[in-house]
Amino acid sequence: MDHGLNVLRSHPQTPPKSVEGCIKACLDCLLACTACADACLGEREAASLAACIRLDNDCAAVCAATLQLLTRSGTGVGVTTLRAQLTACAVACKACESECRKHEAHHRHCAHCAEACKACRELCETTLKALN
Amino acid sequence: MDHGLNVLRSHPQTPPKSVEGCIKACLDCLLACTACADACLGEREAASLAACIRLDNDCAAVCAATLQLLTRSGTGVGVTTLRAQLTACAVACKACESECRKHEAHHRHCAHCAEACKACRELCETTLKALN
Amino acid sequence: MDHGLNVLRSHPQTPPKSVEGCIKACLDCLLACTACADACLGEREAASLAACIRLDNDCAAVCAATLQLLTRSGTGVGVTTLRAQLTACAVACKACESECRKHEAHHRHCAHCAEACKACRELCETTLKALN
Amino acid sequence: MDHGLNVLRSHPQTPPKSVEGCIKACLDCLLACTACADACLGEREAASLAACIRLDNDCAAVCAATLQLLTRSGTGVGVTTLRAQLTACAVACKACESECRKHEAHHRHCAHCAEACKACRELCETTLKALN
Repeated sequence: MDHGLNVLRSHPQTPPKSVEGCIKACLDCLLACTACADACLGEREAASLAACIRLDNDCAAVCAATLQLLTRSGTGVGVTTLRAQLTACAVACKACESECRKHEAHHRHCAHCAEACKACRELCETTLKALN
Repeated sequence: MDHGLNVLRSHPQTPPKSVEGCIKACLDCLLACTACADACLGEREAASLAACIRLDNDCAAVCAATLQLLTRSGTGVGVTTLRAQLTACAVACKACESECRKHEAHHRHCAHCAEACKACRELCETTLKALN
Repeated sequence: MDHGLNVLRSHPQTPPKSVEGCIKACLDCLLACTACADACLGEREAASLAACIRLDNDCAAVCAATLQLLTRSGTGVGVTTLRAQLTACAVACKACESECRKHEAHHRHCAHCAEACKACRELCETTLKALN
Repeated sequence: MDHGLNVLRSHPQTPPKSVEGCIKACLDCLLACTACADACLGEREAASLAACIRLDNDCAAVCAATLQLLTRSGTGVGVTTLRAQLTACAVACKACESECRKHEAHHRHCAHCAEACKACRELCETTLKALN
């Protein structure tokens, strides 16, 4: 993420340092959820993991939107939208983490995905507090 | 949108009819905001339209996520996430509409984009009520 | 799609009329593939539809990128990238159509999705020719 | 990216190690291009950076699609599509790098973005060779 973060740091209206951590968590969660959805699909019991695949896909889509808004947040122009999207992202991460936890004993990808969701949710909540 | 809607209608867990309208509004708003951001950038006074471009881009990103969640909503698995995302989408549309209205007298693309945002926000709110 | 197309038509550098059809086909295919992936996942034999779900997801991702590039194509700035992306989109649509055809006798969503892919591939190819 | 990569490594059909590097480069480039587009928009001479903003946005959209396909590449199901998308991604990165280079003396964000594009293009090309 070095080049990307360097771009962000040379933006004429750099977002606050706390936003960087949230962007990194969103990128990690986007990757985790995209990979976990496909990993679940590759398991023999794919059909019984359908809810997990759906929540993974939803969480990935929500994280992709959230990280875009965070990246453009330095000017403060879209702060109302950002706040609502961070709230949605925390909800998406919580739902996905909670489903992945059910499968973590059997599937290591679900255990790792739950951790990505947890970290992302916590950083969304921290960023939300910093914005208020 | 005919093939896409036909796929949705033959989904084993078809989402409620009201969801269709919301998906169409999100697709329309995604296109409107993506095109309006680029249209603003093509105007001579692009620099003074920076806020509009940012809110267009944010709204497009949020609509892209929302329409994915709506498309997978037939099973009811991710309803908590969907509710939060619809809320965020209504906020994003409102912010973008309100900025576009400031420029609608000078730029027809902003006038049309504001209409797309208004329609999308209304359908997100209707869908939210139907979910509760 | 009316508001979105109206925005596009009031862009100071309107893309050629032929691009509109391609954008509509990409939006339709994005919706069809997103819905078909989730529909396959909702079938009892989801595990045996894993390849179809993967190709649906890939095609949806590729269409989402392609439609963004098409929307910004009026200025001609990114024509080299657009050409490469349209080529990739035609390939993604072909692969997805071909997999969906295998299941169309059993799943109507696959039949409709194959039609969306076919239409999108043809319009990508037409647009490519018009660009050369 | 630690959780995300751990999910990928516990996928039942893990993609080859070389794919990991390409995924990381796509994520970095997605962030770099999204941030650079918004940074350019924040510069006083935004209007003269319109081409750079467009190529940044196009490159970000293409990288977002490419990283999804790479993440699902372990099974080999979509290899034809992946190959075409990696080709498009290399083209998008090259076009964006080349435009950013024109502005790198004046804007550090463009210099960093050009590096992200260069790294991503190289890894797309390496991955393409490994797939053939």
